[in-house]
Amino acid sequence: MLAFVVHKQKLVAKEKPLPKLQPRWALVRVRLAGICNTDIEILRGYHDFRGTPGHEFVGEVAEVRGVSERERARWTGRRVVGEINVTCSAYGYRPECVFCRRRLKTHCARRTVLGIVAHDGAFAEYLALPLENLHPVPHAVSDEQAVFVEPLAAACEILGQIDIKKFPVTAVLGDGKLAQLIARVLRTRLRDVVMFGKHERKLALARLVGVTGIRVQGNRGDSKRIPKHYGLVVEATGSPSGLALALQLTEPRGTLVLKSTFHGTAPVETWPMVVKEITVVGSRCGPFRKAIALLRSGKVDPRPLVTRVFPLAEADKAIQFAQKKGVMKVLLKA
Amino acid sequence: MLAFVVHKQKLVAKEKPLPKLQPRWALVRVRLAGICNTDIEILRGYHDFRGTPGHEFVGEVAEVRGVSERERARWTGRRVVGEINVTCSAYGYRPECVFCRRRLKTHCARRTVLGIVAHDGAFAEYLALPLENLHPVPHAVSDEQAVFVEPLAAACEILGQIDIKKFPVTAVLGDGKLAQLIARVLRTRLRDVVMFGKHERKLALARLVGVTGIRVQGNRGDSKRIPKHYGLVVEATGSPSGLALALQLTEPRGTLVLKSTFHGTAPVETWPMVVKEITVVGSRCGPFRKAIALLRSGKVDPRPLVTRVFPLAEADKAIQFAQKKGVMKVLLKA
Repeated sequence: MLAFVVHKQKLVAKEKPLPKLQPRWALVRVRLAGICNTDIEILRGYHDFRGTPGHEFVGEVAEVRGVSERERARWTGRRVVGEINVTCSAYGYRPECVFCRRRLKTHCARRTVLGIVAHDGAFAEYLALPLENLHPVPHAVSDEQAVFVEPLAAACEILGQIDIKKFPVTAVLGDGKLAQLIARVLRTRLRDVVMFGKHERKLALARLVGVTGIRVQGNRGDSKRIPKHYGLVVEATGSPSGLALALQLTEPRGTLVLKSTFHGTAPVETWPMVVKEITVVGSRCGPFRKAIALLRSGKVDPRPLVTRVFPLAEADKAIQFAQKKGVMKVLLKA
Repeated sequence: MLAFVVHKQKLVAKEKPLPKLQPRWALVRVRLAGICNTDIEILRGYHDFRGTPGHEFVGEVAEVRGVSERERARWTGRRVVGEINVTCSAYGYRPECVFCRRRLKTHCARRTVLGIVAHDGAFAEYLALPLENLHPVPHAVSDEQAVFVEPLAAACEILGQIDIKKFPVTAVLGDGKLAQLIARVLRTRLRDVVMFGKHERKLALARLVGVTGIRVQGNRGDSKRIPKHYGLVVEATGSPSGLALALQLTEPRGTLVLKSTFHGTAPVETWPMVVKEITVVGSRCGPFRKAIALLRSGKVDPRPLVTRVFPLAEADKAIQFAQKKGVMKVLLKA
């Protein structure tokens, strides 16, 4: 099969054998894969990952191993999305690790992560995942929507971590792909969501769904329009300078949700966290069911965020394009 | 009166007039003042403070302004300690700021802070504070104990922010003055408190009160003796490298309490916060009543932490001495 691997900050095409299946795993033919900032960070050295990246996808089940005929029939040909953390139970480890026992599956101590940690991902014709990670996609949800389930679930994670109703006005820092999904998810619960971003066209996309877009230049907002502080700030800039600005925007005793992951260190003045007694909540993977429900109900429609679809064979061209200014979501069609 | 001011990274003696009193403020004759890491950071430029530092003290009320004769009699001569944040109500501001209205007095938007922000502090013969900030010291508590009320209250702040009983084993990072107080406060509630520090003699002090002391060299612990992760980690190293090690020690979905304040930036890899979904809780000033009760009951006795007492006139010599290796609390006697 055709698969792309990371080599010298590029994606290089390779002919690979189909991934091997463990019992109760599925072979999934990828229909559409999304390029995420994390993929770009992986090119830069994040997690030192050298396999096939890609963790946002929608595909169809081509084969299943080690299940009854009935289960096989149920799964084969099914359109699916998949959770990216592969845990103790999927590998048959006994006893399970302490985090699996506590049902914190996304924090499994032995996990591999699709396209990120020791597990080949979706920038390929096929990928392998355990059945327990797969979610069927309802008919009402198109491929172009379903490919957003993984990042949309990450946005939904915030709702499980924070009692969102305590915060009448919430700020989202960043106007990129993930920030846009977060703002849309918050808008399903809150009337006032303010997005701070650097790109007028991206802010305009957010305004279409009732988010207040405020342009910031460099690391400073237009102070006339910015209320000094917010009780809840979500940092999703994907940039090392985001945390410092987020700390400025967060009011004393406020909550700052941290979503950005990037390779390397950020220079942070930590004293404002202490002096303002801010609570910083790291937030990663989230609930797929919730994300699928939001797409199905039409409460969140991510399709306007797609800038361009490339054929899988042009994956390297696509990931270079994804790094251009003003580009939002780039998809690969297998 | 004799007072010290910050000048070119030193404390310089000055003859100053007595501080002026607003209505319902007291003039306090300082008996004993403590040197805190924040004072040392102030010499290095923290908060760009140029007045008289010093925010840990015990003193006696010399004069009170704008109160009834009965109140004056009640306060005059009384041995007191004082909260360091001076808020809207003490300055007579109407309406009060949003934080004072929410009873978050330590976060008052207009506050001055004794010896730290726009308010002359305790490295002087006298200081001025509003009566509402003062707490009488019980007879059972000596001056040498009472001078620790302010940092001990800061240690107690953690108990109000975290449900400590959820964490059977807790790690304190740092073996300095504040870390020692924090470990002692945590020990009043928990059986297993582990202190990670660089100094064998300081760790030995903690072991005397039942804390497990583990020596770390550089930024790495002795991996044989360190359980990989803790559910609760308190970072109190006072050092820019502390946060990175604390993030390593904190388990996925764990809580990290940040206590260190220092001048400048720390280089932080923030992705572990996100990937491990760690909650970082900034923690500053705490409840004086609680601290006084701990001293009175004998549950915490900070006196073994005093390395040396200098006369006030030798304040600069004292603050230089306080920066030497192995030195714990240094006091100034007026």
